[in-house]
Amino acid sequence: MKTKEGMDQKGLARRRMLITTGAVAAGAALTQLGGWLNSAEAKGGSTEKWPWPYEKLDPAKTAEIAYNEWYRVFCGAAVISSVFSQLREKVGEPYKSFPADAFVFLEGGQVGWGTICGSPAGANIVANLIIGPRIAGAHEGHQIAADIMQWYSEAKMPVFAPAVAKQPTKIVTTVSDSPLCHLSVGKWMKASGYELASPERKDRCARVAASTAYHLVELLNDWKDGKYESSSDFTCAKEFGLTGQYNCNECHGDKVPAPPKGKGKGA
Amino acid sequence: MKTKEGMDQKGLARRRMLITTGAVAAGAALTQLGGWLNSAEAKGGSTEKWPWPYEKLDPAKTAEIAYNEWYRVFCGAAVISSVFSQLREKVGEPYKSFPADAFVFLEGGQVGWGTICGSPAGANIVANLIIGPRIAGAHEGHQIAADIMQWYSEAKMPVFAPAVAKQPTKIVTTVSDSPLCHLSVGKWMKASGYELASPERKDRCARVAASTAYHLVELLNDWKDGKYESSSDFTCAKEFGLTGQYNCNECHGDKVPAPPKGKGKGA
Repeated sequence: MKTKEGMDQKGLARRRMLITTGAVAAGAALTQLGGWLNSAEAKGGSTEKWPWPYEKLDPAKTAEIAYNEWYRVFCGAAVISSVFSQLREKVGEPYKSFPADAFVFLEGGQVGWGTICGSPAGANIVANLIIGPRIAGAHEGHQIAADIMQWYSEAKMPVFAPAVAKQPTKIVTTVSDSPLCHLSVGKWMKASGYELASPERKDRCARVAASTAYHLVELLNDWKDGKYESSSDFTCAKEFGLTGQYNCNECHGDKVPAPPKGKGKGA
Repeated sequence: MKTKEGMDQKGLARRRMLITTGAVAAGAALTQLGGWLNSAEAKGGSTEKWPWPYEKLDPAKTAEIAYNEWYRVFCGAAVISSVFSQLREKVGEPYKSFPADAFVFLEGGQVGWGTICGSPAGANIVANLIIGPRIAGAHEGHQIAADIMQWYSEAKMPVFAPAVAKQPTKIVTTVSDSPLCHLSVGKWMKASGYELASPERKDRCARVAASTAYHLVELLNDWKDGKYESSSDFTCAKEFGLTGQYNCNECHGDKVPAPPKGKGKGA
């Protein structure tokens, strides 16, 4: 199902279901009480306070900004800029002082190394800058990052279509089953036949940044309204004893190594 | 070869060799001329200027801070904090205002998803915040990030040993051949036999953060002295037509897919 903005509603519907069946997260309620969360004593006198003041944004407008910003600063910085450029105008500091453009290097899974796609990497930065880290007593930044990682992996990307596309070609969608740039871009290239340097591939990645910015703002708006609840249902360390994804076989085939068990003082 | 601080000198020696055989990078010279680099017009009025004022730091002292900070904020934020906590005292702003603790979420390859290890992710952030993005005319932040990714993948980790270790066990070292947390931690767990939750594995990751902070400061100090030259010799997109690592066979076996060629307006 698509809205008129072209956003897949599956994730949203699923999250709403979770909200109706579960209590509002205690942490979400806590951060909505209006006070700053004091950081654990920051090293060297930094004044780190959370949450940053947040005003609800329009997901579709944010996605349009991210789409166009991709062509200036690429995926990661485009997602950060799409949210922070609006909050600079609506709120001012600390958004005005935050150097979003420095995150251009998130492109290509960090300077082309194909690790985490810049779009979820940028979204995770935004959520954790606004809400704060779990060591400061806030947990929704961490949870939104986990939601973004799983949603990104499972979505038929790109899910957002810009009002005026720079490449009008009807676009192939693919499921990456991974937050890694190498897999997300590689699977799309295989399905579409377009090479990395093509304008079509670039426009696909601009739309992926836009899609991620759209979903990020949905989650942040829910958090602001005190109705955010995490939708991610996967923790690799708990399930498999190692950090990672949910689809071990895709790289390991039938021979998935078993992490060691029982050695170590904490075991 | 190890120094008394326990740092492997291979990378350093190799880089020095490159410096003697090559010209000082034009970009490095440019940013050392003292002027701010003006960003490409930042969205929404942000005043983004580079480079940030940088004072040379002691690599071994920085590594000690990163090692201890790991136990407060984990890998990514520990690397950021190890550099910025010192620059807050030596320089002041903009380091005082930068919310380093928000980057706790880099832990476990971003909230446990095993993507890029937080240590190189944090180092890349530091280098690009200080030097600025390539769209602002500076290229050394991008280059240092590429150096960090390759050095991290090839190093026998951990290469740094703290003066007073929290876990005195003689530590196994492993080569990850990847900047991914899943592979870096997984290979070390396999070689050492320690499980993820063990204090020994945690201490290994604290030492990896310390090792990365050490090398990052070596590169930043070279940059400050105008003698930085990139040592990385790999660009996956150029060599293989897709973002990624250098060791395709490790995941793909003998069946490495060939990226599409020739389709797309830019092809």
